[in-house]
Amino acid sequence: MSLLLVGTMAFDALETPFGKVDRIIGGSGTYAAWAASNFAKPINMVSIVGGDFPQEEISALEARGVSFDGLEVVPDGKSFFWSGKYHMDMNTRDTLVTDLNVLAQFDPKIPESYQGSEYVMLGNLAPAVQISVMKQLKSRPKLVIMDTMNFWMDVAMDDLKTILGMVDLLMVNDSEARQLSGEYSLVKAAKKIQAMGPKYLIIKKGEHGALLFFNEQIFAAPALPLEDVFDPTGAGDTFAGGFIGYLARINDVTFENMKAAVIMGSALASFCVEKFGPSRMQELTAEEIETRVNEFINLANFEIRK
Amino acid sequence: MSLLLVGTMAFDALETPFGKVDRIIGGSGTYAAWAASNFAKPINMVSIVGGDFPQEEISALEARGVSFDGLEVVPDGKSFFWSGKYHMDMNTRDTLVTDLNVLAQFDPKIPESYQGSEYVMLGNLAPAVQISVMKQLKSRPKLVIMDTMNFWMDVAMDDLKTILGMVDLLMVNDSEARQLSGEYSLVKAAKKIQAMGPKYLIIKKGEHGALLFFNEQIFAAPALPLEDVFDPTGAGDTFAGGFIGYLARINDVTFENMKAAVIMGSALASFCVEKFGPSRMQELTAEEIETRVNEFINLANFEIRK
Repeated sequence: MSLLLVGTMAFDALETPFGKVDRIIGGSGTYAAWAASNFAKPINMVSIVGGDFPQEEISALEARGVSFDGLEVVPDGKSFFWSGKYHMDMNTRDTLVTDLNVLAQFDPKIPESYQGSEYVMLGNLAPAVQISVMKQLKSRPKLVIMDTMNFWMDVAMDDLKTILGMVDLLMVNDSEARQLSGEYSLVKAAKKIQAMGPKYLIIKKGEHGALLFFNEQIFAAPALPLEDVFDPTGAGDTFAGGFIGYLARINDVTFENMKAAVIMGSALASFCVEKFGPSRMQELTAEEIETRVNEFINLANFEIRK
Repeated sequence: MSLLLVGTMAFDALETPFGKVDRIIGGSGTYAAWAASNFAKPINMVSIVGGDFPQEEISALEARGVSFDGLEVVPDGKSFFWSGKYHMDMNTRDTLVTDLNVLAQFDPKIPESYQGSEYVMLGNLAPAVQISVMKQLKSRPKLVIMDTMNFWMDVAMDDLKTILGMVDLLMVNDSEARQLSGEYSLVKAAKKIQAMGPKYLIIKKGEHGALLFFNEQIFAAPALPLEDVFDPTGAGDTFAGGFIGYLARINDVTFENMKAAVIMGSALASFCVEKFGPSRMQELTAEEIETRVNEFINLANFEIRK
């Protein structure tokens, strides 16, 4: 099934306890597209880049079934740039530099060829941009998921509430869920957030896995315990891309399939963190994914004897 | 199968964001015995109390199949007293008062009637006390599990290393595992701790569940997401008691059965935190446990469609 991805394509400079890289490829759209391309095509990308974004990165994604009809290239502009430093726990980080560059003028136009996309992922962007995308869609997709962050809760809460009323699923981390709801208990936080609009909620907890909420049902997915997390950048976007890519392939939106999609997203995210940037995602094979998913089954599976 | 429990029977004074209690019943032995008594008997308790410990608490446990042949009562002594205050996350706490009282002179004597106990739990006590118990056992039990804490790593590391070489399973929380191993990654920490002796390791992560390690195998058990954690005191001891009580009933020490035992321990711990002290454990029914275990199955269960 066709998948619409709205997200950034960018450059990152990263520092982790394991090393440092300057200006590598990044962006929520990039990570999500690599992840989703393991499961679904076409992937209809909506993004904006400057003239400095390498054509070979775009071509590599095209070869994986990604369409760039919705990519705006600003020839004399510079691509979005983010620089950050991770702490030892790899769950917290300091932002060193945020250069919006062309992202400041991002006003996405959904091409006619993208109409009818049945699965939609709105990456972490200004809520006004996410709203604009939803308003341009001529038919309601089967599933719309979105990401956001604490920054938008601080500066654009009204718009954020509007877009929350337009989507099916919100994906945030635990501290964002607490900030958005004003509740410390994640169960209480989930109820308040679901009342804001999204029927489904995923709360990501880094090395502690993720929780999926739907009505009174909860699913707890473990994270794969890893010897080393090399670089967590993009893990959340990879999770999101794997999640919606898998659902687009199965094309049957049920809570049971969402549970499997959470595992699939977690499996892909566990690869993403093994190397700096999206490089691990670019070399990933179907066999590796299957093996990793089996590791998750062994990790979570149990049987009670009476 | 018979179960030997070595732990404290004590008084606690507690403060949580939900309230405050003065001088209620506590102690690792008390919590573990209540939990284990749902599954196994006899439970052979080894502990020490002062003349101030209420006889009705002892009688209530006797009615559940707990033997007190190994309880030392010091008529003119005072029972161990601990007072603490929990922070909002309920995973961290400040100790306000630790009055060892009779615990300072605890030199357990294993009664002849306890010899042959096949399952042994060494609660969090001075490693020298844990060693003394092991040396008094005339036959090697099928399974010996132990708890410890950061305090013993600071003041009795040599003894701690000795007892680690005598047990099958260590149960600690994540910060204790990191301190004991000097490794931040829990996977690396587990390898180092297993090299110290225990074949099995359980790392408890509070609201994030628990990890069970055995050779290269890992099992990740979720914690039940709760609206409120009323009082986490005793949750770890309840987990331990439920874990070993279930294994004693099944009487077949395999990794698969340990996975189920971790779920059983987690289920009992999820009740323990619902009220102050052991009161919730005292009123618990078999039906409630079965319902709660089914909640864990729903929480963790998934199926991957191709």
